[in-house]
Amino acid sequence: MKELPFIDWIRSQSDFDPAVVPTGPGDDMAVVVCGETTVLLTVDQVLDGTHVVLADCGPGRAGRKAMARSLSDVAAMAAVPVAAVAGVALPAGLAQKDAEAIYRGLRSAGDPFDCPLVGGDVASWDGPLTIDVTVLARCGRGREPVLRSGAQPGDAICVTGRFGGAWRTGRDLRFTPRIAEALALAQRCDLHAMIDVSDGLAMDLHRLCEASELGALIEADHVPVHDDAVALHGGDPLAAALGDGEDYELLFTLPGEQADAILARPIFDTPIARIGRVQADRTVQIVRHDGRRDDLPADGWEHET
Amino acid sequence: MKELPFIDWIRSQSDFDPAVVPTGPGDDMAVVVCGETTVLLTVDQVLDGTHVVLADCGPGRAGRKAMARSLSDVAAMAAVPVAAVAGVALPAGLAQKDAEAIYRGLRSAGDPFDCPLVGGDVASWDGPLTIDVTVLARCGRGREPVLRSGAQPGDAICVTGRFGGAWRTGRDLRFTPRIAEALALAQRCDLHAMIDVSDGLAMDLHRLCEASELGALIEADHVPVHDDAVALHGGDPLAAALGDGEDYELLFTLPGEQADAILARPIFDTPIARIGRVQADRTVQIVRHDGRRDDLPADGWEHET
Repeated sequence: MKELPFIDWIRSQSDFDPAVVPTGPGDDMAVVVCGETTVLLTVDQVLDGTHVVLADCGPGRAGRKAMARSLSDVAAMAAVPVAAVAGVALPAGLAQKDAEAIYRGLRSAGDPFDCPLVGGDVASWDGPLTIDVTVLARCGRGREPVLRSGAQPGDAICVTGRFGGAWRTGRDLRFTPRIAEALALAQRCDLHAMIDVSDGLAMDLHRLCEASELGALIEADHVPVHDDAVALHGGDPLAAALGDGEDYELLFTLPGEQADAILARPIFDTPIARIGRVQADRTVQIVRHDGRRDDLPADGWEHET
Repeated sequence: MKELPFIDWIRSQSDFDPAVVPTGPGDDMAVVVCGETTVLLTVDQVLDGTHVVLADCGPGRAGRKAMARSLSDVAAMAAVPVAAVAGVALPAGLAQKDAEAIYRGLRSAGDPFDCPLVGGDVASWDGPLTIDVTVLARCGRGREPVLRSGAQPGDAICVTGRFGGAWRTGRDLRFTPRIAEALALAQRCDLHAMIDVSDGLAMDLHRLCEASELGALIEADHVPVHDDAVALHGGDPLAAALGDGEDYELLFTLPGEQADAILARPIFDTPIARIGRVQADRTVQIVRHDGRRDDLPADGWEHET
């Protein structure tokens, strides 16, 4: 079974009343009308062997990553976390102190964002560790969620942070969800579209473009490459920056002059880079310093040297 | 690792602001203040080998049970479901048609209660099937959620439906969450306390009593025994009715005269039985037709013949 065709099939089955579910599957969070208010929901799994290797990272970091992954989705909508619940399947042999470490790891990621862990379901079983975290969020005051689908032709494409090498160096276990940055950006700028980069900068850029029914032109020299990618790949780290994933940074589009303003006068310490622009042509391309353009496939890019 | 001591430990770690989290872990759903409204959240897991046996029941019934389990928690609070999200870990060899059957199973349990599946996280892995369903709910109009902790001395203890033999006969794969019944009861009666019976009538009665800091006296002859338990256990099915679990019926307390009224004039087709009364003495006991009283342990009761 391939995951992506199945997810496409699920979307084809959806038949929501837009008055109740303004945004269903296909964005970072679902948006739901609940009584007099609009709320957001996301669920993310951390499976041992897929999203973490428990024997290497230990239970605390697995718990931390599970909560942080869901909070990164909250950041991607420029929303405010309210509360979380977790479903945890514990391997039968696990000691209680390790189970407690998972709980503490979940809390260590949620507490800084006032996102309490208000409930859960815990079972011991013969399978590997699984941690599912659902986060409930609300809109920022007087503000709509920022979707993937709102990009406009000519928008600047920006990112927070630096990319590449996160999984192999364990940065995926330590990242801080960009909630504060997202809320600050939403307050100062007209964020047209946003997504968090979990599956790779190229992949998530494709998703944003697809949702917006537009394309993008990325400047290779402007993609911020993490030192981890340089350390791992020497003089050719760009493919890692575009393809690795697990960065949990923000990728967003906004009017070019607003991008100029926040680049000239930063509104927080986390670095921001302008990596390209949205184009009406639905192709996603990358241009090198010598002016050559190539298609940028969703599954990343092999730099031709 | 034992699950119950770990869950007790988690509760001991909780330090919620009651203005934000009026009800945290320890009830059927958490109650959270979200902007101008109060919402409820629950998560339940269905793990292959623990809550279902996929090879026996098939993917559709596994999905159905996962959604129905969480909706049974919504019933236990007399709340109204709003939306669900699901985290699904699919065994690597599963065919797409089986993944689709899981989705259809989830929908088949949610759709009758207007509870759309608005998002999810799907991954394929080397472990067994896991399905986590989180349901978001709201309070009934102008009504507070019904907690486990509100029982009062002298209350009648009532149940919906019949008990025993559910797991062995597959009734756990077919049950209808008692949402309609819970809402009808909450509209007509002063429900003081309620819980859904998933782990066994005796176990969940103990939980309700513990949360209410009270005890109970159950009349053995009044416990409604399911035909499945009779078929399985012949002339002595009471222990199965008290201990088996997986019934997903409602156990609730209310003033005795109100119990009399709904028993005399039923407000829905699902049978209701009055099985005993709440007592100030914190013991949980069962009285037989010959008047002999025994303690009713949380893990069920072996009928002495």
